[in-house]
Amino acid sequence: MRPTPDTPVTTIRSGREGAPTPADLAASYRTVRRATRRLCEPLSAEDCQVQSMPDASPAKWHLAHTTWFFETFVLEPASGGYRPFHPQFRVLFNSYYQTVGEQHPRPRRGMLTRPRLDEVLAYREHVDERVLDLLDSPRGLADAPAAVVELGLHHEQQHQELLLTDVKHLLSCNPLRPAYVADSPAMPRTDPPTLRWLAYGEGVRWLGHDGRGFAFDNERPRHRSFVGAFELGSRPATNAEYLAFVSDGGYRRPELWLSDGWNAVQTHGWEAPLYWERRGGGWHVLTLGGLRELRPDEPVCHVSFYEADAYATWAGARLPSEAEWELAAGDTLKKGNFVESGLLHPAPANAAPDVPSQLFGDVWEWTRSSYGPYPGYRPPAGALGEYNGKFMCNQMVLRGGSCVTPASHVRATYRNFFPPDARWQFSGVRLARDGR
Amino acid sequence: MRPTPDTPVTTIRSGREGAPTPADLAASYRTVRRATRRLCEPLSAEDCQVQSMPDASPAKWHLAHTTWFFETFVLEPASGGYRPFHPQFRVLFNSYYQTVGEQHPRPRRGMLTRPRLDEVLAYREHVDERVLDLLDSPRGLADAPAAVVELGLHHEQQHQELLLTDVKHLLSCNPLRPAYVADSPAMPRTDPPTLRWLAYGEGVRWLGHDGRGFAFDNERPRHRSFVGAFELGSRPATNAEYLAFVSDGGYRRPELWLSDGWNAVQTHGWEAPLYWERRGGGWHVLTLGGLRELRPDEPVCHVSFYEADAYATWAGARLPSEAEWELAAGDTLKKGNFVESGLLHPAPANAAPDVPSQLFGDVWEWTRSSYGPYPGYRPPAGALGEYNGKFMCNQMVLRGGSCVTPASHVRATYRNFFPPDARWQFSGVRLARDGR
Amino acid sequence: MRPTPDTPVTTIRSGREGAPTPADLAASYRTVRRATRRLCEPLSAEDCQVQSMPDASPAKWHLAHTTWFFETFVLEPASGGYRPFHPQFRVLFNSYYQTVGEQHPRPRRGMLTRPRLDEVLAYREHVDERVLDLLDSPRGLADAPAAVVELGLHHEQQHQELLLTDVKHLLSCNPLRPAYVADSPAMPRTDPPTLRWLAYGEGVRWLGHDGRGFAFDNERPRHRSFVGAFELGSRPATNAEYLAFVSDGGYRRPELWLSDGWNAVQTHGWEAPLYWERRGGGWHVLTLGGLRELRPDEPVCHVSFYEADAYATWAGARLPSEAEWELAAGDTLKKGNFVESGLLHPAPANAAPDVPSQLFGDVWEWTRSSYGPYPGYRPPAGALGEYNGKFMCNQMVLRGGSCVTPASHVRATYRNFFPPDARWQFSGVRLARDGR
Amino acid sequence: MRPTPDTPVTTIRSGREGAPTPADLAASYRTVRRATRRLCEPLSAEDCQVQSMPDASPAKWHLAHTTWFFETFVLEPASGGYRPFHPQFRVLFNSYYQTVGEQHPRPRRGMLTRPRLDEVLAYREHVDERVLDLLDSPRGLADAPAAVVELGLHHEQQHQELLLTDVKHLLSCNPLRPAYVADSPAMPRTDPPTLRWLAYGEGVRWLGHDGRGFAFDNERPRHRSFVGAFELGSRPATNAEYLAFVSDGGYRRPELWLSDGWNAVQTHGWEAPLYWERRGGGWHVLTLGGLRELRPDEPVCHVSFYEADAYATWAGARLPSEAEWELAAGDTLKKGNFVESGLLHPAPANAAPDVPSQLFGDVWEWTRSSYGPYPGYRPPAGALGEYNGKFMCNQMVLRGGSCVTPASHVRATYRNFFPPDARWQFSGVRLARDGR
Repeated sequence: MRPTPDTPVTTIRSGREGAPTPADLAASYRTVRRATRRLCEPLSAEDCQVQSMPDASPAKWHLAHTTWFFETFVLEPASGGYRPFHPQFRVLFNSYYQTVGEQHPRPRRGMLTRPRLDEVLAYREHVDERVLDLLDSPRGLADAPAAVVELGLHHEQQHQELLLTDVKHLLSCNPLRPAYVADSPAMPRTDPPTLRWLAYGEGVRWLGHDGRGFAFDNERPRHRSFVGAFELGSRPATNAEYLAFVSDGGYRRPELWLSDGWNAVQTHGWEAPLYWERRGGGWHVLTLGGLRELRPDEPVCHVSFYEADAYATWAGARLPSEAEWELAAGDTLKKGNFVESGLLHPAPANAAPDVPSQLFGDVWEWTRSSYGPYPGYRPPAGALGEYNGKFMCNQMVLRGGSCVTPASHVRATYRNFFPPDARWQFSGVRLARDGR
Repeated sequence: MRPTPDTPVTTIRSGREGAPTPADLAASYRTVRRATRRLCEPLSAEDCQVQSMPDASPAKWHLAHTTWFFETFVLEPASGGYRPFHPQFRVLFNSYYQTVGEQHPRPRRGMLTRPRLDEVLAYREHVDERVLDLLDSPRGLADAPAAVVELGLHHEQQHQELLLTDVKHLLSCNPLRPAYVADSPAMPRTDPPTLRWLAYGEGVRWLGHDGRGFAFDNERPRHRSFVGAFELGSRPATNAEYLAFVSDGGYRRPELWLSDGWNAVQTHGWEAPLYWERRGGGWHVLTLGGLRELRPDEPVCHVSFYEADAYATWAGARLPSEAEWELAAGDTLKKGNFVESGLLHPAPANAAPDVPSQLFGDVWEWTRSSYGPYPGYRPPAGALGEYNGKFMCNQMVLRGGSCVTPASHVRATYRNFFPPDARWQFSGVRLARDGR
Repeated sequence: MRPTPDTPVTTIRSGREGAPTPADLAASYRTVRRATRRLCEPLSAEDCQVQSMPDASPAKWHLAHTTWFFETFVLEPASGGYRPFHPQFRVLFNSYYQTVGEQHPRPRRGMLTRPRLDEVLAYREHVDERVLDLLDSPRGLADAPAAVVELGLHHEQQHQELLLTDVKHLLSCNPLRPAYVADSPAMPRTDPPTLRWLAYGEGVRWLGHDGRGFAFDNERPRHRSFVGAFELGSRPATNAEYLAFVSDGGYRRPELWLSDGWNAVQTHGWEAPLYWERRGGGWHVLTLGGLRELRPDEPVCHVSFYEADAYATWAGARLPSEAEWELAAGDTLKKGNFVESGLLHPAPANAAPDVPSQLFGDVWEWTRSSYGPYPGYRPPAGALGEYNGKFMCNQMVLRGGSCVTPASHVRATYRNFFPPDARWQFSGVRLARDGR
Repeated sequence: MRPTPDTPVTTIRSGREGAPTPADLAASYRTVRRATRRLCEPLSAEDCQVQSMPDASPAKWHLAHTTWFFETFVLEPASGGYRPFHPQFRVLFNSYYQTVGEQHPRPRRGMLTRPRLDEVLAYREHVDERVLDLLDSPRGLADAPAAVVELGLHHEQQHQELLLTDVKHLLSCNPLRPAYVADSPAMPRTDPPTLRWLAYGEGVRWLGHDGRGFAFDNERPRHRSFVGAFELGSRPATNAEYLAFVSDGGYRRPELWLSDGWNAVQTHGWEAPLYWERRGGGWHVLTLGGLRELRPDEPVCHVSFYEADAYATWAGARLPSEAEWELAAGDTLKKGNFVESGLLHPAPANAAPDVPSQLFGDVWEWTRSSYGPYPGYRPPAGALGEYNGKFMCNQMVLRGGSCVTPASHVRATYRNFFPPDARWQFSGVRLARDGR
């Protein structure tokens, strides 16, 4: 079973002219929370239990932590003396909020066979009832808690994507090569449009979120930046193009790589993107629908920043900055292959437009920008100030969402970030170059 | 639910005068295989899934591997063209038999969320039917395969004990401190008998198994050894005695420790036996029945060889050699607190006899003997030659069985072995000293 | 013995109006190369041999590698069939130039007890003679090789600083607490001027090197950037100020730290800057002149980026961006406490001006900017393209030089870079904040 | 320069009928101490400085530690208020004597560039003068201190061998492949005698040292052991024989190996003994005299216990127990290729006798016996009780001495011991098998 395309899985309504109404929030809450549960339906209790590497979390932990978020940041501060579902959950399912208190060690999340999956689901119901009670109360919620509920829903959407990336990694550790869903839709073969270069002029530009509707703190404040003239590739790099890099000895030529990237190649023995497997004469690729032949027309996926950068160098180009990407995306419609399509895999490129295609959905696009604070950024006060700000070091920005991102989650100003050696996200490459 | 005392959980009949009959074997097979399943009844699918450290295995893996043993060494060689239940199980559930072929990497056994627990149980039934068909066939089994079935049953009993030690370790990783069984019987407080020294004279002695009934290859051949006069403690060291060592700074005095032992103390930060926890004013201990106050009258348990050795040095004594232990045990009845008691924890010492008490059951007793081949030992031909022989290095011998050993599994000549820093087995200390 | 202040240790003349003349180059070559040797005079052959950690290199290796640079990039390409001093030195003393070929593994540089120190000094003389022959030849050098000689001299100055930081680290590993120089000048106690905030307005600014005189490739191209209004601290943070942070529990309060910084605190057990030692009632600090009482009036030194950032957060400020730093420095004279002073330690702050003081010398100042390519940057062709470009990831920019930097080496556009956890460089903190 | 054969490098006279006289001791002291210094003559200060791996120590450290031994255990307890040469040397050069106090961490011995080599040599002279004063004093030394001086000389001989094995390892880390001595004598090619099996009958035997002359505590007490009939190979295995094992896929066949041994093969990528190198078509071997072609007629050397055991299994034999070895050696003369020959490498086998040849010298012979206490063993009281006893775990016994052992150091009862994966000692293989 997989999420069906006709279900508005994770829509979060947020009024253009301000905060969502309580009724909007309650409806969104129901939709988003249900979507997380549906993502777990193809999984056994065992699948939901295991942590395949320290960077990943068990699906059961995602289910519990997103619930903990509402319990800790919405129910506990609300008047009326909420009693926690279980006193030790405050520690067990705290991810990284030092201000809240101690955390169960991250690499040991997979040890928690208790609470069982059914107990965690009961925890979800318990919290859901109380949050919905709050949202449905005659007085409604004050503005501040309402904003926290909205944040919690976007937080939950992030974990929906992580849940799928973590499950994919777990299944990849099993030599039986199990599939998460057996019946994802087949896509017709395409002949990807030729890569074109779209030109943008120089100037002082406004970047960051303008405050209409929801955004994370790290997308703000809106600020000016001088951006030189640049050109952007009309679509992401395809498997066929990346395969040419591989075949040209890309993984054996240190001169193409950043120094740390070359170290990573040697330390980990990388020879191709994550989930590529040589079988018989050709390459196969592990997808959430199982192992398949590698399709040349799909965007390359599951590459690290180091690989994206080396590929760009080999191609005589470079990665875009996040400013460049955001400027280009500001002009396009936010349409694409998101989790709601049920494909759960990047889709082949379609007809070439005069605007960049596939900026949204399919694959997160690595930028050359390291993740840092925007000018004037200050983290919010309190524990939620730890949400984004403290990670602003040693990570690179990715833009645009992927085939496992909820459609309502992403926007042109959205900043995703991962360390430069991370490969288990649905991350790909779009080329850029200096303008002439 | 736990194994009830009145059930003959794992009796394996083995004729004094030779191999068991096919009917004996079939009855034993049913009993032993059922006992393994019953040990998993208090566990959820999640509990059976997780591997808490590389030394431990998931309960589900134990269920599958013991089945793999019969499939690989009994069904496959049997005539009639047995088709494996699943072709990849040959690799997934091979523990360490290089002669059989590749193995799924030991530290990654916990990654296998597929096959699910119910599928592994189906695998067990599938193999059980076919093994029982073989045993019930009119011709019966030839001698060699019958001996392999018998070996497989003793192998399964070993894994029953490992399953419990591994589950105990897994549950100890959970801050919720869950219990495996909630209702293990309470034992009356006792006043342990004073430790007495029982004297044995010097001489050339016969050691090792005499060939009547089942024994592992490492207990043979029977051979002579000169054993000097020695004295053996009348019972294992108690928690009270060990606590005196702890309180006397035992874990802070390097002069009491072997060099490698002292390194282990510092590397791991050992301050007491595994599963001891300081709570409020006093020591508690984690048991399969949950966290309890430490009882002074129970044998100390879950100590490494290094700790056993340091304790003996502190006490002005030493550990017995395995020859000394075997000579003392040869004169006593094999009675004790085994898994069938349902206690699943060492029992307090009882009235002091003129023979050593608690040699069998309660706790495995570390000896000062490193695990090596007996004079004239040769591993059997073929894959089963890997069962014991290749581990004869870097391990120390333990004797006598524990409170989680099946009663029918152990004997006076039985040689258990673990690395000197292992603590998650039910291992304790009996003192010895040179004769006068 | 230490370098005496009156010696123009490492002056490199570079004409404002273009490249230095061959005579200039030859003079600079003699001066710079001699300075490196003088830095080793207080060291025994053993001191020059040992590598105290993988990040550091033996002094002997610095002596050889800087020579290898001239041999490989100047002598080998020159006409006339230069024969290498020793064929294997090409590998032994190659730092990281993949284009040149294999490298002796970095963490094993300390294993090379052969060639001996005297042999490495002979290698230096051999190469010096030939380089000077080239420079003195009637035809002179063509432009390109002359530029490489100039680059080699700046390269050698970098290694002069590294040699001193690496020796300091090595000596710190010795419980005897040996000093590099016993007789560094005493500085009178001062009362550091109050920290003032100097304001700068917003606008589009030109950054990067303008091409007059020498600069590294990473300082180019000159480009525009929009810089918001900001305020800069009038001097670096002092030990007294940093001690207030330490005393306020700075190293025990996770909310002050970046997530990776807090991990570093816990992993390494940081409690104070590197080289601070608690002795009796107070703090001491290890200097190149030995262990001394910590002086409150000196700039704090040997802090990582993480510590600098946490200190700034605690102080209610932030670190400057490299653009902000460069704009401020562009208006000031490049004067300060450099290696030529012989102090080899940061000097106390002096009278407070209306311009920022101590921007140059004393301590490298961490910026909040991650080290990346300037817009339009392209690494040079060939092996020398590896000099800077491939390190543009996972590092933070530092500015201004230190008390062990040669005065002629640094400039307002100079970009130094180290990973955020590096502490063995002479790195300190200058605060900034957003303009009003 | 190398020790010349005609110099009695390290003779220690020890009267058959009791302790050596003070004059004997003084003469031995001079000889042994001088020999250590002579071993360092071919080495530069840099060679003496570096620690090539945690198991090895710098030559300078050996020079200082052996001096520390006399200072700590002879001079300090002597009457007259000896003042230590340097108060911190007590910590710096303490190897592992917890009873004496703290130790400089073993893996950081190579960091100590101060004291310099010349200062360590002055330390030696300082201590030598005072020890000789004591020995030459009219009263002489009391028995106990005299025994400690004698122990110190045997201790120093052990370090002479370690110094050479550690220097060999250090030089092997240098791609220049430097030699310790350039001019070791050439040995004529031989045709090694066919391996014969020498038979020994069963019985209760006395083992261990009889108390006449010096022995280490671990060789005592003399005790009885039942030893079955066995046969011993007439000479050690040769390179030719071992090469047949290598060529037969010995390093790729897990069934030949102990489990831990096979892990070591895979972890370290072993394909041949340490110091074997494939060059062009054939094998070369690194010796203290430099890199040479592998000679088929020499005993194989620098193999671990694991390799020795796997070779024996492949050859259809086993390793001898230490009892078997000692019984065989008790009947032979202690002659052989020791350090005094100046060869510093195992010599080819010579004419086959009816007694086992090359038991002494050439290569240490791995036994199948783990290193443990003899029955009745008790370590001496005080710090010197740490000399041997605390290492009686996780190590295997080797017998007979090697080509870098001083001739007067070894005897039939001598027990050397190293972990089973150690290869940098001069360790080889002699086969044994059960008697018929």
